[in-house]
Amino acid sequence: MEFKKNFDIKDDRNLTMLVDFYELTMGNGYLNKNVGNKTAYFDMFFRRVPDNGGYCIMAGVQQLTEYLSNLRFTKEDIDYLRSKHEFSEEFLSYLKDFKFECDVWAVPEGNPVFPNEPLVTVKGPAIQAQFVETMILLTINHQTLIATKANRICRAAGNRPVMEFGSRRAQGYDGAIYGARAAVIGGCSSTACTISEQMFGVNAVGTMAHSWVQLFDNEFEAFKAWADVYPENCVLLVDTYNVLKSGLPNAIKVFDEVLKPKGIRPSGIRIDSGDITYLTKKCRKILDEAGYSDCKIVISNSLDEHIITDVLLQGAEVDSFGVGERLITAKSEPVFGGVFKLCAVENDEGNIVPKIKISENQEKITNPGFKKIYRLFDKETDKALADLITLNDEVIDETKPLEIFDPIYTWKKKKLTHYYVKDLRVQLFKKGELVYENPEVLEIRNIAKKETEKLWAEVLRLENPHTYYVDLSKKLWDLKHNLLEKYSNAFNS
Amino acid sequence: MEFKKNFDIKDDRNLTMLVDFYELTMGNGYLNKNVGNKTAYFDMFFRRVPDNGGYCIMAGVQQLTEYLSNLRFTKEDIDYLRSKHEFSEEFLSYLKDFKFECDVWAVPEGNPVFPNEPLVTVKGPAIQAQFVETMILLTINHQTLIATKANRICRAAGNRPVMEFGSRRAQGYDGAIYGARAAVIGGCSSTACTISEQMFGVNAVGTMAHSWVQLFDNEFEAFKAWADVYPENCVLLVDTYNVLKSGLPNAIKVFDEVLKPKGIRPSGIRIDSGDITYLTKKCRKILDEAGYSDCKIVISNSLDEHIITDVLLQGAEVDSFGVGERLITAKSEPVFGGVFKLCAVENDEGNIVPKIKISENQEKITNPGFKKIYRLFDKETDKALADLITLNDEVIDETKPLEIFDPIYTWKKKKLTHYYVKDLRVQLFKKGELVYENPEVLEIRNIAKKETEKLWAEVLRLENPHTYYVDLSKKLWDLKHNLLEKYSNAFNS
Repeated sequence: MEFKKNFDIKDDRNLTMLVDFYELTMGNGYLNKNVGNKTAYFDMFFRRVPDNGGYCIMAGVQQLTEYLSNLRFTKEDIDYLRSKHEFSEEFLSYLKDFKFECDVWAVPEGNPVFPNEPLVTVKGPAIQAQFVETMILLTINHQTLIATKANRICRAAGNRPVMEFGSRRAQGYDGAIYGARAAVIGGCSSTACTISEQMFGVNAVGTMAHSWVQLFDNEFEAFKAWADVYPENCVLLVDTYNVLKSGLPNAIKVFDEVLKPKGIRPSGIRIDSGDITYLTKKCRKILDEAGYSDCKIVISNSLDEHIITDVLLQGAEVDSFGVGERLITAKSEPVFGGVFKLCAVENDEGNIVPKIKISENQEKITNPGFKKIYRLFDKETDKALADLITLNDEVIDETKPLEIFDPIYTWKKKKLTHYYVKDLRVQLFKKGELVYENPEVLEIRNIAKKETEKLWAEVLRLENPHTYYVDLSKKLWDLKHNLLEKYSNAFNS
Repeated sequence: MEFKKNFDIKDDRNLTMLVDFYELTMGNGYLNKNVGNKTAYFDMFFRRVPDNGGYCIMAGVQQLTEYLSNLRFTKEDIDYLRSKHEFSEEFLSYLKDFKFECDVWAVPEGNPVFPNEPLVTVKGPAIQAQFVETMILLTINHQTLIATKANRICRAAGNRPVMEFGSRRAQGYDGAIYGARAAVIGGCSSTACTISEQMFGVNAVGTMAHSWVQLFDNEFEAFKAWADVYPENCVLLVDTYNVLKSGLPNAIKVFDEVLKPKGIRPSGIRIDSGDITYLTKKCRKILDEAGYSDCKIVISNSLDEHIITDVLLQGAEVDSFGVGERLITAKSEPVFGGVFKLCAVENDEGNIVPKIKISENQEKITNPGFKKIYRLFDKETDKALADLITLNDEVIDETKPLEIFDPIYTWKKKKLTHYYVKDLRVQLFKKGELVYENPEVLEIRNIAKKETEKLWAEVLRLENPHTYYVDLSKKLWDLKHNLLEKYSNAFNS
């Protein structure tokens, strides 16, 4: 498959200062207390899948690598920070000469990911690993949210193309620009956001709005003008006044009078309001009877996976969907709750000391230690059986049976025999140096398609999916529970 | 009042191509059909207040003026568009020499606004007025959404400061940066988003995260280190392990052992999890008994106006709130449904021909014509009585009684006598030239405060507010209904 080139429009803003202020106060404090160069390990992970879905689609890694590659504090930044009277000159000087030195691992974009998995791990000087928290979260949270929502919507639409139409209702410019990127990763065929094609090579499309129709003396004249200018891409918006009494009859008249004499077939009609099922069935019948059974019907109007499922169930005659605000904002659940937590610190001897965050909410307790994720596949079906989070130095011998167990209901065990494993993450940065080449967006969309097909249908279900197994290795489970026992004894004595 | 200067960090991206592709196909079509230079009037308005609130807070005008001032197509843009094979060389050449020539009016930021009011009106060559649709909507929709949500949350918090903490869960970088700006317009005292202080002069604040506590050998050492570095701004996060058994006792120990000997009072404690009401009451009592009744209690953890109202009702002892994801994404209703509709076109004689968009949904029918908004105030109380949308040439004689009527239940009438009127909008651009000076963000926050105080308490209510009157002048009402009759006759014959 050949991928479209993007047009080299880059977002070259310096976003170094897009950071929660406390990362700076803490950095200043770490330096002051001589712990700034302690090697720390932070994990980025999330706790639940939005919309109670079965999986998320990882996205945002490319923007994360761009941000980390470009970290730099300008003189203006330093002057501004000095004016806050909270930072030492030593700290400001550290920032002035800032050079990113961390190791970073992440799950590549497009892969299905699950709660509690360390999607990103940063290892490096505490002062640096702490600093990148805000942007790691912001980038991965946003794009993973939208890619996941898009994947749900595209799943509902089946083979019908879904076009991303939401720029105008996005939350800020990047909500539109990077939202369109994430939507395509999730499965959308194209976007209305023009600049996203320039930046990412995702196809930008569009035809007309109601204003086109209104601007002419009447609907017929408007359609005729369009067919004149775009005979080969004649998609007419038929609901400005009345679909069945005006829009469709005028469209067919134009197909007959303008296109037919030229031997050109119409591309489609679009309906943006009213009862989709009723109108599309009526329109389909009328178009077929008029000899335009190849004329496509495009639908848009506050769609999401539920409305699409519902109208298709009722037999709506739709060839493709334009999806706007409910996709670009992930309206049904617009927050992706990724967090960034300290999981280990190296002591003076260079040994990794695991760290844990306790909480009265069981699900908020973190997994300690420097970890990795193995995905376990069935050798015969190539389906994903489970993910296993292990300590980083654990190796799985695929030639031997592997027993995995539920981390809460530990008596629920499973012995795997015909399986193979895949280390789910790649290294992005080595001592601050980028060592990863980001794939093109359309290639990432292929990865998402291929890798979600390896999930059982039960996990892919939109409603009440089966919970995919994310287990801990025995070694990690023991480590965690020993730490929990320790704190429990301390507070309950 | 003295306003803080911003630090001259500017977002100087060229966002000209952040545009729905159909604006370009239509522009190309307008030019081809010789209607590109027809003078068109477009209104931007919304149809309902998010969260069923009583009003919205206008925001985003400054970014809109920046965008419109910087419209330009680069050679790369033109080359890219040429590669799509949909545009004529005449159109590409028009874009190459693009010079913005429109008149633009808008409601200044900070003002309360209501459904169906033309918040922005663009008058100019159809090809240009059409082109700016996407960015007008994107900018005003996003910031008005967040300013409105922030205003609700701040209203619930009463006199207690509300800090915006949501960057990490924002929808893209601008979601964080401009979201923080809008949150401050809505009433927030400060933000955690550092770059927003550099750009807009809004105060950036922050102290520590759980990782600070985890990085040290134990909680006491972590608190002691903080008090050492920041004795004058000692806010300690007390819920890393256990608020009452560990966090608070350690905090008090540090206040006693580190701060007291220096004669410094502690600034506060922060709680980010658990039962707010229970924990803050307990903590308040313990702090008071320890002699720290001036130590503030800061709360954060998935807060919104409802949770804040609820915990305050139960007597939670909170001095300030940090509000994150539910504010920065307007989680309860993350879409602001602003639309941009053609309302008039000038004919060859230069007369304004009103245009209307019909719909089977009564509320989707637009108000035709070139319009303005008058806000009517009671002379004695200075309270806003109603808004009146009129045709642009209508003048209200304040010395005479004014009869207004409900645009749907037209028999509901009201005669105003002791009133004065205010033209709610200002002109931003005259023939493409910026003629408006944007106020500083902190000044806009003052406007929002002052102008919302002019609304009756019934309109300000969070739940079931009274619907503020937005009426049409008799002249406008007649114009609209004549057009509706015309189309009704056409389709029902």
